[in-house]
Amino acid sequence: MTSRERVRAVVDARWFNRFIIGVIVVNTIGLGLETSPDLMASHGTLIHTVDMTAIGIFIVELAAKFYAYRLRFFRDPWNWFDTVVVGVALVPAGETFAVLRALRIMRALRLISQVPSMRRVVTALLSAIPGLLSILGLLLLVLYTSAVVGVQLFRDAAPDLFGDLTTSLFTLFAVMTMEGWQGIAEEVMAVYPAAWVFFIGYIVVTAFIVLNLLIAVLVSTMENQLSAERWEEDQSIEAVQHARVMEELRMLHDRLDEVQAALPRQTGSPDDLDRAEPAGDQAETTRHAVPPDTALPPTEKPDRLPEPAT
Amino acid sequence: MTSRERVRAVVDARWFNRFIIGVIVVNTIGLGLETSPDLMASHGTLIHTVDMTAIGIFIVELAAKFYAYRLRFFRDPWNWFDTVVVGVALVPAGETFAVLRALRIMRALRLISQVPSMRRVVTALLSAIPGLLSILGLLLLVLYTSAVVGVQLFRDAAPDLFGDLTTSLFTLFAVMTMEGWQGIAEEVMAVYPAAWVFFIGYIVVTAFIVLNLLIAVLVSTMENQLSAERWEEDQSIEAVQHARVMEELRMLHDRLDEVQAALPRQTGSPDDLDRAEPAGDQAETTRHAVPPDTALPPTEKPDRLPEPAT
Amino acid sequence: MTSRERVRAVVDARWFNRFIIGVIVVNTIGLGLETSPDLMASHGTLIHTVDMTAIGIFIVELAAKFYAYRLRFFRDPWNWFDTVVVGVALVPAGETFAVLRALRIMRALRLISQVPSMRRVVTALLSAIPGLLSILGLLLLVLYTSAVVGVQLFRDAAPDLFGDLTTSLFTLFAVMTMEGWQGIAEEVMAVYPAAWVFFIGYIVVTAFIVLNLLIAVLVSTMENQLSAERWEEDQSIEAVQHARVMEELRMLHDRLDEVQAALPRQTGSPDDLDRAEPAGDQAETTRHAVPPDTALPPTEKPDRLPEPAT
Amino acid sequence: MTSRERVRAVVDARWFNRFIIGVIVVNTIGLGLETSPDLMASHGTLIHTVDMTAIGIFIVELAAKFYAYRLRFFRDPWNWFDTVVVGVALVPAGETFAVLRALRIMRALRLISQVPSMRRVVTALLSAIPGLLSILGLLLLVLYTSAVVGVQLFRDAAPDLFGDLTTSLFTLFAVMTMEGWQGIAEEVMAVYPAAWVFFIGYIVVTAFIVLNLLIAVLVSTMENQLSAERWEEDQSIEAVQHARVMEELRMLHDRLDEVQAALPRQTGSPDDLDRAEPAGDQAETTRHAVPPDTALPPTEKPDRLPEPAT
Repeated sequence: MTSRERVRAVVDARWFNRFIIGVIVVNTIGLGLETSPDLMASHGTLIHTVDMTAIGIFIVELAAKFYAYRLRFFRDPWNWFDTVVVGVALVPAGETFAVLRALRIMRALRLISQVPSMRRVVTALLSAIPGLLSILGLLLLVLYTSAVVGVQLFRDAAPDLFGDLTTSLFTLFAVMTMEGWQGIAEEVMAVYPAAWVFFIGYIVVTAFIVLNLLIAVLVSTMENQLSAERWEEDQSIEAVQHARVMEELRMLHDRLDEVQAALPRQTGSPDDLDRAEPAGDQAETTRHAVPPDTALPPTEKPDRLPEPAT
Repeated sequence: MTSRERVRAVVDARWFNRFIIGVIVVNTIGLGLETSPDLMASHGTLIHTVDMTAIGIFIVELAAKFYAYRLRFFRDPWNWFDTVVVGVALVPAGETFAVLRALRIMRALRLISQVPSMRRVVTALLSAIPGLLSILGLLLLVLYTSAVVGVQLFRDAAPDLFGDLTTSLFTLFAVMTMEGWQGIAEEVMAVYPAAWVFFIGYIVVTAFIVLNLLIAVLVSTMENQLSAERWEEDQSIEAVQHARVMEELRMLHDRLDEVQAALPRQTGSPDDLDRAEPAGDQAETTRHAVPPDTALPPTEKPDRLPEPAT
Repeated sequence: MTSRERVRAVVDARWFNRFIIGVIVVNTIGLGLETSPDLMASHGTLIHTVDMTAIGIFIVELAAKFYAYRLRFFRDPWNWFDTVVVGVALVPAGETFAVLRALRIMRALRLISQVPSMRRVVTALLSAIPGLLSILGLLLLVLYTSAVVGVQLFRDAAPDLFGDLTTSLFTLFAVMTMEGWQGIAEEVMAVYPAAWVFFIGYIVVTAFIVLNLLIAVLVSTMENQLSAERWEEDQSIEAVQHARVMEELRMLHDRLDEVQAALPRQTGSPDDLDRAEPAGDQAETTRHAVPPDTALPPTEKPDRLPEPAT
Repeated sequence: MTSRERVRAVVDARWFNRFIIGVIVVNTIGLGLETSPDLMASHGTLIHTVDMTAIGIFIVELAAKFYAYRLRFFRDPWNWFDTVVVGVALVPAGETFAVLRALRIMRALRLISQVPSMRRVVTALLSAIPGLLSILGLLLLVLYTSAVVGVQLFRDAAPDLFGDLTTSLFTLFAVMTMEGWQGIAEEVMAVYPAAWVFFIGYIVVTAFIVLNLLIAVLVSTMENQLSAERWEEDQSIEAVQHARVMEELRMLHDRLDEVQAALPRQTGSPDDLDRAEPAGDQAETTRHAVPPDTALPPTEKPDRLPEPAT
């Protein structure tokens, strides 16, 4: 057992995973406490020490994983995620990097990559996105088109809402979430009374598209979860029933073999002329429509389950 | 190959479709930039030239398609859509046509007709509408009826909200989206304290109808997508199993033919009296409940799939 | 054909139904126009005449239906609805009955009882309600309990929101629709900073219950619509396959009858001892596990379809 | 019949359950009336007496149940709930226990434990929670992480919204419910114009997670309700069909027994060499692929229904 194998055994161990999860939780709480100036004044040193220790452990952890798996380490996108999130902590965070300093809390999101059940949930969420791209594109196209129309028509009526394209996009995103849309519409309608056509049309169209986006997510989720399981169960019982019927039919063939063997031999019967089969067991397989071995066995069923398109 | 055929080959080519999509994207970005007075002051000529070029390309494109397909061009509703959207650009857009000028951005929606996946999404959305007409009609009826009641009861209490039928319709549409309904209700309840009955009743009823509208869309979508696929898969395995059982039963008939042929002939058996069938192979088809050719073949299954009512 | 039969033929005729729908539409538009003081000043007499004529037609219509069907008229709840809605117009509507006068527009809702597709939609909506009573009761219980707690805890902090039980119920209904809840919570939290526990707890619990109410409607609707249809289709193909297998098996029995009849008679065979059946056709039905008549026929299938619990 | 058995018969009786429900309803209404100072001034003594009597009845009820079931009383979590809810009434409720006094209305929630249909609904709601823990955890993680980022970035821009971690959590919970998010975003964007990235990103991510939470509830509910019922029905018809086919095949075996018995005996047939079975009825079971007793009987089906994972 080389040192690489020993390191790999450690980083793959369950206790190691739990230890890292514990460090992430402690670090996450610590970063939350850092937001309190009072606590920072009284226990700042302790909180900083905990943060530094956590970062140190994470660096050792990732280095160990990289040592254990070498370039295969980068095949797992979650490892990329972990590396970037930990790497953010190492950037010198001055005033100019206030955002980067704020992003240190992203380390809390390492919980997603380390807790298996959350990892599964996020993977499932992300896997739904490709199937939504067309309808998301449509939504963005409607948003953009409406924003351009909004600027051109309502720029003078409500410059704070439709003054330029960015403002107009933000305003119409708010209208799409139905947030304060009535106030927005009334401000514009004070100048252009017919503007309700634009707003109600926009709300109805985007609500309908968003609804269908929602349904697309639902259908994709149900295809993956509900149906597959239930259907499998369904099919396996049917497969057992089918196998029994086939077995019974096979037995009937055997019985007929016996009957034929017991019959007084006759030459010149119409069947024998064009078949001329050997009697008895040897004939059995040729007379079966489906040889016993190729009959759909229940144990092979799962392989034939449809892979639902995502 | 006539010139018409050559033109058709061009307008049907994949590269032509992609080129047009590219022109639409450039034109869409350009129309967005046009909303910025600063950019128009510095690069106005360039932006206008791009717009003019794009319109020119669209006119040539549509003319080519019309030349290639002649009157069949108008059979595709998307071609109508493209023609109208491009035609809007040709209308002289003065001050009196500010709306028409704003609608030039509708050309961005040509992306829908040109990108196949978006076209499918929009076609699917539109195909859901006929099944929703009854429930949409019910929603409009409740909205209209409530608006008339609103004017008659609350006109004096809140003239800005229920002054006339149009205002009342707009106010109640806002209440239906749950936007600012509490402020609206409180303004009326300051005069008529019992008005909460109207508002809560209206919210509960419309929310229930909208919810069912949502479910109607969902059911229609799932009927089209999820079920059909899964069901088809389901049926095809069952069809294979059924075909095997039928084949085995047919084999048993053949075996019995052989048994009968092997038996010593007897006259006067009860069966022969009322059936008097010819023996052997000729009898086979008449004795089969289902002739082999008419047995439900798996390959014909898709035709029998239920067409879900939209 | 008595006069009663002739009247019934008229009120059941399609043209009569369409005529009444036309009168309702005209009357509905008229009642909408009545909300405009300007129009009433200029065309008041005409609008009133149209209204009176419509009421007259409705009274004649209902009288004719009552004459045609006598007491059976009251078996259809929609006839009750029509009678009440038309009856409201006959109540002398002075100042004291302003609400009743406003309710005249309810006649527009007669469209629901007269247009078959809307009638179906409303019947379907109402049929979903019984299955929702438990969860609706739970929602009301949570609302009431929270309202009592709200009064007792926050009466002093926000008398306009939680001053008495009615106000508190209204406020918490608004919070349940998520409308302006943040402003409400902040007004209370200004006095009791810990009140966020109450509001967030209440929002999470009611949102979860409302979500399940929504799902209960969805499940009930899908049980009624989607599944039944698809399932029926599913079953009918399976039933056809099953019928074919059974038919084939019955044929095999017939063939064996012939085989047995053709065999040289033997006395004392083990089977004959304990069965002693008559040979041939007479024996056939007793040897069948299922007599042909009782075999599940496809045409009887719909009766056996499960009635989904609503 | 001991006194314990007699007490148990009483507390398990339907009339007792209905009596307790009646007392809860009266008590609930009384606690609602207590919120009105006017009513308390005029009928305070009566209302207090009703409350005291109800508490007395509840104490006797719970004591009787405890006497009847002894320690098994505590096995039912609903009994714990009832005991705690009644126990709250006995705590001396001074000014310092204003919250406890307000919680007396929780006794209304005893309706849930006493009305069977509400008990089922609540049990179903609670049973959905374990399956949601991963996605709820993800939601809380995103909320917490965003709140920390919010404090660090926007503390100076909007101290009333992002001043400390608790305020930031509350603000972002409000944004998640889409309540007043535009006003919040605009307050921050007045200082940091790029803050829209944070708000729109947060809204899109949480809306997507909440949507999937909703779908997870939906899928879990449908698995429990819709599918199980329909599937059972589905399977039972298939099981009946399967049983009929199997019965027919068994009959065919019996017929072949008779045929073989009727045949002239021959020695040395290929089959007899390796089987050497006794003829007739004794052979029947051994020749059956499936002995009749083990054939899937319809009545045993429910046991084999899949238990949907919650």
